[in-house]
Amino acid sequence: MSDAAPTDPTTATLGDLGEFGVIGRISELVAQLAPGEDVLVGPGDDAAVLRVRKGHIVVSTDMLVEGRHFRRDWVDAHDVGRRAAAQNLSDINAMGGRAQWLTVGLAAPADLPAAWALDFTRGFAEEASLVGAGLVGGDVTSADRIVVSVTVVGACTVSPVLRSGARPGDRVALCGRQGWSAGGLAVLGRGFRSPRVLVDAYRRPEPPYEAGQAAAELGASAMIDISDGLVADAGHLAEASGVGLDLRSAAFDVPEPLVAVGAAIGADPIQFVLGGGEDHCLMATFPTSVELPEGWREVGTVVEPGLDGPVVTVDGAPYEGAAGWTHF
Amino acid sequence: MSDAAPTDPTTATLGDLGEFGVIGRISELVAQLAPGEDVLVGPGDDAAVLRVRKGHIVVSTDMLVEGRHFRRDWVDAHDVGRRAAAQNLSDINAMGGRAQWLTVGLAAPADLPAAWALDFTRGFAEEASLVGAGLVGGDVTSADRIVVSVTVVGACTVSPVLRSGARPGDRVALCGRQGWSAGGLAVLGRGFRSPRVLVDAYRRPEPPYEAGQAAAELGASAMIDISDGLVADAGHLAEASGVGLDLRSAAFDVPEPLVAVGAAIGADPIQFVLGGGEDHCLMATFPTSVELPEGWREVGTVVEPGLDGPVVTVDGAPYEGAAGWTHF
Repeated sequence: MSDAAPTDPTTATLGDLGEFGVIGRISELVAQLAPGEDVLVGPGDDAAVLRVRKGHIVVSTDMLVEGRHFRRDWVDAHDVGRRAAAQNLSDINAMGGRAQWLTVGLAAPADLPAAWALDFTRGFAEEASLVGAGLVGGDVTSADRIVVSVTVVGACTVSPVLRSGARPGDRVALCGRQGWSAGGLAVLGRGFRSPRVLVDAYRRPEPPYEAGQAAAELGASAMIDISDGLVADAGHLAEASGVGLDLRSAAFDVPEPLVAVGAAIGADPIQFVLGGGEDHCLMATFPTSVELPEGWREVGTVVEPGLDGPVVTVDGAPYEGAAGWTHF
Repeated sequence: MSDAAPTDPTTATLGDLGEFGVIGRISELVAQLAPGEDVLVGPGDDAAVLRVRKGHIVVSTDMLVEGRHFRRDWVDAHDVGRRAAAQNLSDINAMGGRAQWLTVGLAAPADLPAAWALDFTRGFAEEASLVGAGLVGGDVTSADRIVVSVTVVGACTVSPVLRSGARPGDRVALCGRQGWSAGGLAVLGRGFRSPRVLVDAYRRPEPPYEAGQAAAELGASAMIDISDGLVADAGHLAEASGVGLDLRSAAFDVPEPLVAVGAAIGADPIQFVLGGGEDHCLMATFPTSVELPEGWREVGTVVEPGLDGPVVTVDGAPYEGAAGWTHF
């Protein structure tokens, strides 16, 4: 950083501001945007200091890599921030917990406009504020491409709902939009920007943040958020529980915009629903004694595992489509 | 991942194993290596579940980027793991806390040997076990270069020691090796591999993990770990406290291997001590009423801030050398 480097964050790059300049600007912004509850010491010291009111915390980490999880020409900085927060808040939601505190590691090229980092932070804090969570620390460093790593810490007022508690006979239910983000990605991948409602769903997922804790209180036996793909994530739940899941394709909601995109590109729109991720909807299993709360729809049944172990079937048969996203 | 891809982790790449294959192997390893205390649910669910025994937790996040913070030809996977853990455990040490749980985000090329990721995990868990901390979760994804992001959660049995509590008249003291890592880096940068003791110090820092909590119990007024460079980090403490720090160059320990390297490359070896980071030694300030515990040496005094605000001086004058590392 030379003495003459610009320091106006609307025009400066990360390299112009330098690491501590960037951290300073982000910390100021965070103090305004996302103070968070029970934060005794926020960003700026060696670690954040947080007051824990209950006996359990839940912790999760997720990364976003430019070119892999987002493209800067498809999603602006503010929305990358929202997505980064949403994807992590959703993991706490899927435990039945309440997200409270987040840290962000941002590795980025030195020529990245500082405004990008600040807009990212604004979007991140905006999403976090939906559940009352605060950004309490992080790190900034240089890399060839943007890599965002988020860790979220949450509290549980009831026992966390694991992936491993599903039992044969339980109902499989879904809460939240599903397939919309995959539809939006398919649209963007073909160079289009509409239907706008799907593109927006890809850019700004709307996880059902109220639903996780409520499902836990109602006695959900297992829960997971759909982030890699519905059939793939259903498989993770089935495997952890040692059960099978049979999904009924007719039970899924296939909204009109997905039908339209399917028709336009010659794809069965149920593929967006069964193979899509990143809407961060919740899948949970409930004992039959539990009346499904509002917002949940039953989409299948927990069954005995197959002869070859846990397996997910659709309408009683193996699913032939893409089950979800693979990271390598 | 094709069906024919090799799955033997001694020869397979990350791409061969696939994301969930990699996570599965790492999770098995973690279960063997670093179970951790008070871990109710470890890796494998949407979040880890942790029992908190005290009312405060401390949380910190730090990243390591290949080519920026390490080179694979200079540091093997096991030692990158140790360094990644050490750098984060040290932040909790600098709060006077006890590190308990860690998460790791690993972004890496698909052609990275899976053995690298597993050796990394082994080294990471080995370092964490030095303080009894456990690896409880994380994420694996693909990127052009290796980016490691670590978050550590710790407990504090006494009030955390912040950077902001230093007062004029306090003594400035240091605990742990300082300058050794910078000396090792200078050696490697010139294509040499000796003095071995310095190269080893660069590869495997040995932070004084016992010292942070002890200093907190004794009444340290402020504390920071030296990770970016001694004068630079001293400046962060001075700024947070609104004071000046005057360091006495003659008070620092300049070990013989640093003297030898200085002579060989024509540099004053005190530069390694004053500008070096990454040994993760601790700098703390103590009221004069506190007798310095064993292992600490007094290296300066807290003074009134300069006319232009907080400033670090060496022997009463501004420091002319490199104060530390800049990330952009």
